[in-house]
Amino acid sequence: MPIPATMTAIAIREPGGPDVLVPVERPVPAPAPGEILVRVAAAGVNRPDVAQRQGHYPPPPGASDIPGLEVAGEVVARGEGAAAFAVGDAVLALVPGGGYAEYCAVHETNALPVPAGTDVIAAAGIAETFFTVWSNVFGRAGLKPGETLLVHGGSSGIGTTAIQLAKAFGSLVAVTVGSDAKADACRALGADLAINYRTADFVEAVKAFTAGRGADVILDMVGGDYVARNFAAAARDGRIVQIAFLGGTTPTLDLRPIMVKRLTYTGSTLRPRPVEFKAAIARELREKVWPFLAAGTVRPVLDSTFPLRAAADAHRRMEANVHIGKVVLTVG
Amino acid sequence: MPIPATMTAIAIREPGGPDVLVPVERPVPAPAPGEILVRVAAAGVNRPDVAQRQGHYPPPPGASDIPGLEVAGEVVARGEGAAAFAVGDAVLALVPGGGYAEYCAVHETNALPVPAGTDVIAAAGIAETFFTVWSNVFGRAGLKPGETLLVHGGSSGIGTTAIQLAKAFGSLVAVTVGSDAKADACRALGADLAINYRTADFVEAVKAFTAGRGADVILDMVGGDYVARNFAAAARDGRIVQIAFLGGTTPTLDLRPIMVKRLTYTGSTLRPRPVEFKAAIARELREKVWPFLAAGTVRPVLDSTFPLRAAADAHRRMEANVHIGKVVLTVG
Repeated sequence: MPIPATMTAIAIREPGGPDVLVPVERPVPAPAPGEILVRVAAAGVNRPDVAQRQGHYPPPPGASDIPGLEVAGEVVARGEGAAAFAVGDAVLALVPGGGYAEYCAVHETNALPVPAGTDVIAAAGIAETFFTVWSNVFGRAGLKPGETLLVHGGSSGIGTTAIQLAKAFGSLVAVTVGSDAKADACRALGADLAINYRTADFVEAVKAFTAGRGADVILDMVGGDYVARNFAAAARDGRIVQIAFLGGTTPTLDLRPIMVKRLTYTGSTLRPRPVEFKAAIARELREKVWPFLAAGTVRPVLDSTFPLRAAADAHRRMEANVHIGKVVLTVG
Repeated sequence: MPIPATMTAIAIREPGGPDVLVPVERPVPAPAPGEILVRVAAAGVNRPDVAQRQGHYPPPPGASDIPGLEVAGEVVARGEGAAAFAVGDAVLALVPGGGYAEYCAVHETNALPVPAGTDVIAAAGIAETFFTVWSNVFGRAGLKPGETLLVHGGSSGIGTTAIQLAKAFGSLVAVTVGSDAKADACRALGADLAINYRTADFVEAVKAFTAGRGADVILDMVGGDYVARNFAAAARDGRIVQIAFLGGTTPTLDLRPIMVKRLTYTGSTLRPRPVEFKAAIARELREKVWPFLAAGTVRPVLDSTFPLRAAADAHRRMEANVHIGKVVLTVG
């Protein structure tokens, strides 16, 4: 199949609701040195895409204005010096933008082979959450076997990935969710404790689950009043990693637990990091996590798929907070 | 000299001002298994002693109600199994209480030899700040050579120790102080930048000193509105360690820098930690820091000495915030 000159992509017409996501014609990107061109089979939808659409999260310098932080598909061309993959290989990749499109240029070090036995559509939902969970939960927070991880938003893409990876590496996992159906889904994925935050206090539930000790690592994307409650739910020497502030950034907060419980409160963003940092995560994932994906012990959890042109509907589903796992756009 | 049955110690008659510190007669403690009995030559005065006197910082379970967290003196008896020191050895030690006294029982693993060339009186001011700075700045925060450390309260016992240790291990050091005289003292100890916080904004000063990058590690005992300013003064991937909250524990705080700058905000207390933890610090100090003390590259900074019975005056001096280095009580 020849590579066309132009392609369909989804642009953000102006900041706003889902309807501002509109199909546009764009030139097919040419792979720069070290990049590969991927014919996109599917592109993952992520919470930051919604923030970008709303005008709150501009793309980093040099990144495409087209939304989309992860893709999976087939390598159709290679830029100068790119040698990690062959034309025809099935890959998934983390990108700083440009995923909602028929073609996407990807730095080859930020791409990984689609794991054996994984469908390419489901594979499109792997990169963003696996890079994020690996670098934050195992990297920054240093989760160890036998420790307890608390994950908020247990049924989200991040949550379903964190549950599986933490279980695969020998930890206990508690999650918070907003419905009993989501709690069931998390338990089915291996969560040892699923707390419906609408009916139970997660601090008390985690304390009870850990015989009063608290969680060793907490992965949080809520912020707001959860920060103080995370401090309360954490064990001594606990590590709390903040990867988003969906619930606010300026809570009222008593900081004494930082000192008295020797907490470590940290966080990170992924998208603006240099390609070399993401390459290092990719290498670790391929070595430590890809075997679990190939074995089927860990799998991407697909909530729903929407055609690329229905990206607005995909965003609506994400904003309705009813999804379990990943929302993915299918292309072509 | 035989060991008497009773001794003079300084007790806290009731929570209150310096005058509640009163001489009392107490039995000389008997060294428990693994402990040594030290005839105290001098005892360091520390900020937590003031908080304890005010009724805000009760001794941990099992600790003496007599204040005093560090002593130096001569080993005069050994408890069962204690073999690290001989009777007659000059030692300094970290204790969870009981330092303001003529005799003090000390776990031998929490004692260290008085460094060659160091006066025993000055040595009494070593333990608390060296254990604290070592475990927090080099341990929790992982300060590396070439990195920049910002220390608040640069002329305090903690500050003068942090300046010297960070310089000895190849870092750049910025400090905040409350007077030009204190700034001069810090520079004389090796500080590369001394900021008088009454006349300059430390965030701007640190940014200017680091070409806009910020401090890699910040050691703070202030808290309050310093927390947000520490977030602003920290470099990307910076580590901030809180070892006290003299300025308040519940500031108004925008937490976004935790994520965007990938900060690590942590802290610790020393006194309630188990004897084994303190023993591990003592081993590291003896290996890594004692050579600097023996060489004179690093030295305890003695502000002033007061006789044991004048402990109230020693507290008054500390609370006047005019001291540079350590306030020490001399015994006998």
